[in-house]
Amino acid sequence: MIKAGIIGATGYAGVELVRLLSRHPRVKLAALTSQTYAGKPMGEVFPHLYGLVDHVLEELYLPELVARCDVVFTALPHGHAMPVGEEVMRRGKRLIDLGADFRLKDVDVYQSWYKTEHTASVLVASAVYGLPELNREEIKDSVIVANPGCYPTSAILGLAPLLTDKLIDAKSLIIDAKSGVSGAGRGLSLKTHFSETTNNFQAYGVATHRHTPEIEQELSRLAGAPVTVSFTPHLTPMTRGILSTLYANLTEKISTQELTERYRSFYAGERFVRILPPGMLPATKNVAGSNHCDISVTVDSRTGRVIVLSAIDNLLKGAAGQAVQNLNVMAGLPEETGLDFAGMYP
Amino acid sequence: MIKAGIIGATGYAGVELVRLLSRHPRVKLAALTSQTYAGKPMGEVFPHLYGLVDHVLEELYLPELVARCDVVFTALPHGHAMPVGEEVMRRGKRLIDLGADFRLKDVDVYQSWYKTEHTASVLVASAVYGLPELNREEIKDSVIVANPGCYPTSAILGLAPLLTDKLIDAKSLIIDAKSGVSGAGRGLSLKTHFSETTNNFQAYGVATHRHTPEIEQELSRLAGAPVTVSFTPHLTPMTRGILSTLYANLTEKISTQELTERYRSFYAGERFVRILPPGMLPATKNVAGSNHCDISVTVDSRTGRVIVLSAIDNLLKGAAGQAVQNLNVMAGLPEETGLDFAGMYP
Amino acid sequence: MIKAGIIGATGYAGVELVRLLSRHPRVKLAALTSQTYAGKPMGEVFPHLYGLVDHVLEELYLPELVARCDVVFTALPHGHAMPVGEEVMRRGKRLIDLGADFRLKDVDVYQSWYKTEHTASVLVASAVYGLPELNREEIKDSVIVANPGCYPTSAILGLAPLLTDKLIDAKSLIIDAKSGVSGAGRGLSLKTHFSETTNNFQAYGVATHRHTPEIEQELSRLAGAPVTVSFTPHLTPMTRGILSTLYANLTEKISTQELTERYRSFYAGERFVRILPPGMLPATKNVAGSNHCDISVTVDSRTGRVIVLSAIDNLLKGAAGQAVQNLNVMAGLPEETGLDFAGMYP
Amino acid sequence: MIKAGIIGATGYAGVELVRLLSRHPRVKLAALTSQTYAGKPMGEVFPHLYGLVDHVLEELYLPELVARCDVVFTALPHGHAMPVGEEVMRRGKRLIDLGADFRLKDVDVYQSWYKTEHTASVLVASAVYGLPELNREEIKDSVIVANPGCYPTSAILGLAPLLTDKLIDAKSLIIDAKSGVSGAGRGLSLKTHFSETTNNFQAYGVATHRHTPEIEQELSRLAGAPVTVSFTPHLTPMTRGILSTLYANLTEKISTQELTERYRSFYAGERFVRILPPGMLPATKNVAGSNHCDISVTVDSRTGRVIVLSAIDNLLKGAAGQAVQNLNVMAGLPEETGLDFAGMYP
Repeated sequence: MIKAGIIGATGYAGVELVRLLSRHPRVKLAALTSQTYAGKPMGEVFPHLYGLVDHVLEELYLPELVARCDVVFTALPHGHAMPVGEEVMRRGKRLIDLGADFRLKDVDVYQSWYKTEHTASVLVASAVYGLPELNREEIKDSVIVANPGCYPTSAILGLAPLLTDKLIDAKSLIIDAKSGVSGAGRGLSLKTHFSETTNNFQAYGVATHRHTPEIEQELSRLAGAPVTVSFTPHLTPMTRGILSTLYANLTEKISTQELTERYRSFYAGERFVRILPPGMLPATKNVAGSNHCDISVTVDSRTGRVIVLSAIDNLLKGAAGQAVQNLNVMAGLPEETGLDFAGMYP
Repeated sequence: MIKAGIIGATGYAGVELVRLLSRHPRVKLAALTSQTYAGKPMGEVFPHLYGLVDHVLEELYLPELVARCDVVFTALPHGHAMPVGEEVMRRGKRLIDLGADFRLKDVDVYQSWYKTEHTASVLVASAVYGLPELNREEIKDSVIVANPGCYPTSAILGLAPLLTDKLIDAKSLIIDAKSGVSGAGRGLSLKTHFSETTNNFQAYGVATHRHTPEIEQELSRLAGAPVTVSFTPHLTPMTRGILSTLYANLTEKISTQELTERYRSFYAGERFVRILPPGMLPATKNVAGSNHCDISVTVDSRTGRVIVLSAIDNLLKGAAGQAVQNLNVMAGLPEETGLDFAGMYP
Repeated sequence: MIKAGIIGATGYAGVELVRLLSRHPRVKLAALTSQTYAGKPMGEVFPHLYGLVDHVLEELYLPELVARCDVVFTALPHGHAMPVGEEVMRRGKRLIDLGADFRLKDVDVYQSWYKTEHTASVLVASAVYGLPELNREEIKDSVIVANPGCYPTSAILGLAPLLTDKLIDAKSLIIDAKSGVSGAGRGLSLKTHFSETTNNFQAYGVATHRHTPEIEQELSRLAGAPVTVSFTPHLTPMTRGILSTLYANLTEKISTQELTERYRSFYAGERFVRILPPGMLPATKNVAGSNHCDISVTVDSRTGRVIVLSAIDNLLKGAAGQAVQNLNVMAGLPEETGLDFAGMYP
Repeated sequence: MIKAGIIGATGYAGVELVRLLSRHPRVKLAALTSQTYAGKPMGEVFPHLYGLVDHVLEELYLPELVARCDVVFTALPHGHAMPVGEEVMRRGKRLIDLGADFRLKDVDVYQSWYKTEHTASVLVASAVYGLPELNREEIKDSVIVANPGCYPTSAILGLAPLLTDKLIDAKSLIIDAKSGVSGAGRGLSLKTHFSETTNNFQAYGVATHRHTPEIEQELSRLAGAPVTVSFTPHLTPMTRGILSTLYANLTEKISTQELTERYRSFYAGERFVRILPPGMLPATKNVAGSNHCDISVTVDSRTGRVIVLSAIDNLLKGAAGQAVQNLNVMAGLPEETGLDFAGMYP
């Protein structure tokens, strides 16, 4: 059994990780930490787990915790995973960081977008961007996996075949993304206060959202050249789910049917990416509660554009589910271990 | 492997049953029928199952279907399970009916509340009311299990200890129940049209809902005397979940703490009933996506009443989950087989 | 023009009051106060009013504010309206308090339920409980109007005819009430965090909610004898609206039709109470955005009970709308002045 | 008083028109028609109007109806307003059509997108596209006003200053629009079934939505050259509201502040268009229930793009509210007559 610790087990991504790992056939939950709820039983703070998870939440004593674990998950605000990375490295353990600290290869870019000093920059080079569909081999042997952001996961998976096969003008890329409210976390704010959010739709972080450099880094890697995107996130009155609507100018004539085939080839054998046939469009409800990413492509011959739709559950394929998928890759387990379930409809 | 057929696989309870049984380790889905979608792949009609369930929906040919199955599930409007019951009996197979046809022991009561002739009344006596927590032994050897209604499940589980232990005045029982909209099914109506239902709360079927005689039958059995209840269902702007608020006059002095202990004893060893400690109250979100029934009791010494709260997911413990639980009991499997998961929070 | 000041203009009831009074043909908004937003334009803090309301929010200087106003509205947590009552009295102005400070006639009861010392108890006796349909005459000449709570408004209006005409056993009264989330205010809490609240239904404050003594006080007055009730509030995943389901044992035989007529007589001439004919049931969506209270009665002859349903918009008839209605009564204006609009459907 | 008739008073736009016109100080509702509900009181079919609107819904006898009215509103599916246009013309009355029949100047384009023969093409030339902010003068003297579609209203108002002032490359235009579900009407469909729609977000009509040619026609007129756009509508789990996110490549350097000023100049004096200052972004909740269109502009200097956000209530500024605004223009009334209210927050 793999001994796993979760640092930050009481944010939404952390709680979801507890739910997944508590039923993972090859994992034993070794430690759950929480600043706010240390000392309380997990199942009383989160009653959906009442009677199912016995653990008591604990304060974080980093070296001692890392010593007890084979792998550590950090589900913390950015800036907090750096010392964990150092400790894990020191003790020969492994880290899956659900935050942003190890995603950006250029530490200056990190510091400029996150307004935070990077204190473990030496570790950044060896950290692997944990999108298994694109970086599976590197993940296998990695020590630190930087689990991707939720928006980047949906955008990058949706655009990878276009950039890899050089079918589009990379300068024309527009990412219009819509997220459920759980993406904003469990921390209280007016933006996520029920009466402000329900029956409301709005954009935020226009041209300034921190997932932009992460998306650009990975798309540039795929394109083999610098890519700049317009990325606009929106807040949608639902709990889970991201739908990204992706626009790009095609550089050659291709039909919707042909492009769908290209996507199918690109993702052949992938368990969690489902390329929908023409006529079916992704909907967040069809992936909510699962680790799937559903993708459709539509070629608009009137405008010479392709419109890609990409849907995930932000807490699963966009966070905790992908983290477990990364764990499975790292441990040499079948990738769907503990993730082998459909979305919850309706 | 148990060969299972689902007649009516495309209503909400049927689809949920497909989702559960497709991952049940001891079940093989032998047949899925649909009037509306016969000939179409299940995974295209319900894209959350795309790539996960291979079955093509088929028309119903009853004898042929029963022949292929060890157990048949009917998830149909009332009146349609009677011939299935007869066919199953004839061929020595077993039936779990998610509808109302075999729930009421008094055929006249059935005919009066459902305005439908009962054409298989001879089978009613041997059918077992499928609430495993109360009728486990009878279910084991049954041929026909009448899977309880969603409202009755929440109400009966919430009241059983009070009536069994004769702690209340049975004449004072009031059941004020609130259901998510999926309980109204997948059929179209203004009542379930999004813009009419969202941001709206209303009662319906006041003093006339068909689950009333079912509740009264089972409560009377527990009380050992006829019980009449006021039952008011309400429609809540959410998809899944029932919360029943249950009121009764206590016939003796007892504290919240003591009564909680009585409930814990009554349900000792039950995997799916969780008696919450004083200070915790059930919420539908904590059971949605799971087969749990969460119950709290509060004694109001000012009024001499007990207020019991009972929460379930209407599609799981209130329908498909309970049906699988019944299957497990019938097959001698551990009761949580295929049902061993927490609710999906948030 | 009546010069009106609002103390606490940035909670949900306060904002709604600003919206209503800014279009009231006989009112001039003289002052809006806010602790949190003092110095900011109302229309920037609340962009639905952007360009429509020019006022800048100000800090509260009580004597100076009262001096500028003819009538003061307080939309504050309990405990804060007492000094305003004293100041208003001193200067010969009038007060409409949307909080709880002047609702309970028995100061001990107030102090016991609200855990707060009452520092203006001398004013309590002359304060009038501001339910115009029941206390119109007293309101006309009052100096201090205690605007009722949202739950009490729906419950009292729904039960008044039964108690006044002595048609029920007052000991059997059960009030099962369901409120939209705006009733919990604009202050942040996990209980009103979107991802916790949406797709969720739960009870709270079982047998301990502070609106209980207020309901009992007014029902006792109507019954001419002490009335004790079971009152259970629930949180519903919608913004506005309360539906109260009210149960009582009838003491005489009466039909639904006859009882509906009794209600129609009782509320004859009332502009804001709508008694629905048999076959129509209240829904919160039909009153949201209006000052109406919709009521239906159903006699259940099987159980000898009456089930009354009563729906209001908690921010209008349950708070700001009723406050304006009270102002109109106090000022001798037609009661629907500034309130003459239908609910917003869908 | 202006005698107004509404043909199709029971769809969502029609009902909203009844609500608005029933309180319009210069209008008398002369007739409300309905195919489905003819013979029933409006206030029983739509209980929010119970006691407020006395009209009985009637069947449509076109000549007789037009004879009784000064102005006729049609709130019907496309194809049904053509004979009304002819009748109105014949009798010297006026028509405001909320449908699509008179919006497209090129009848071939209409027939190709709507798959419907245009039987009143002779009237098309004189019909005026009813966007008062852009076409006020023509509307004044028009006989037939083609009330714009909901998506086009939000998109055109958001883009008009950019195209008029030639600040953008018109070929780069992308319109990513998100609508509440009421935009899909009151007719039943799985797409608008509560359990399918709530907690779900999806695109539809990708590259094929019928509002595309309408948007292109009006933008081309503003640009003085043919404009082709990518337009993607999405269904959002809320009742009212459209937010359009509009992308275009800027052809010159300009700051967010400067561009905001350009918008303010362009819409100077407009009662219903609110240009938000930098730092404020539109949200559908701030316009829901009002006739406003809220607009913000953000210049993204990294990509050389402008991102415009434009929010309306689809049933008000996107349908019934704009129709009343058009009526006011036609009748020489102040444009805000009967529309002088803020949105309903929260």
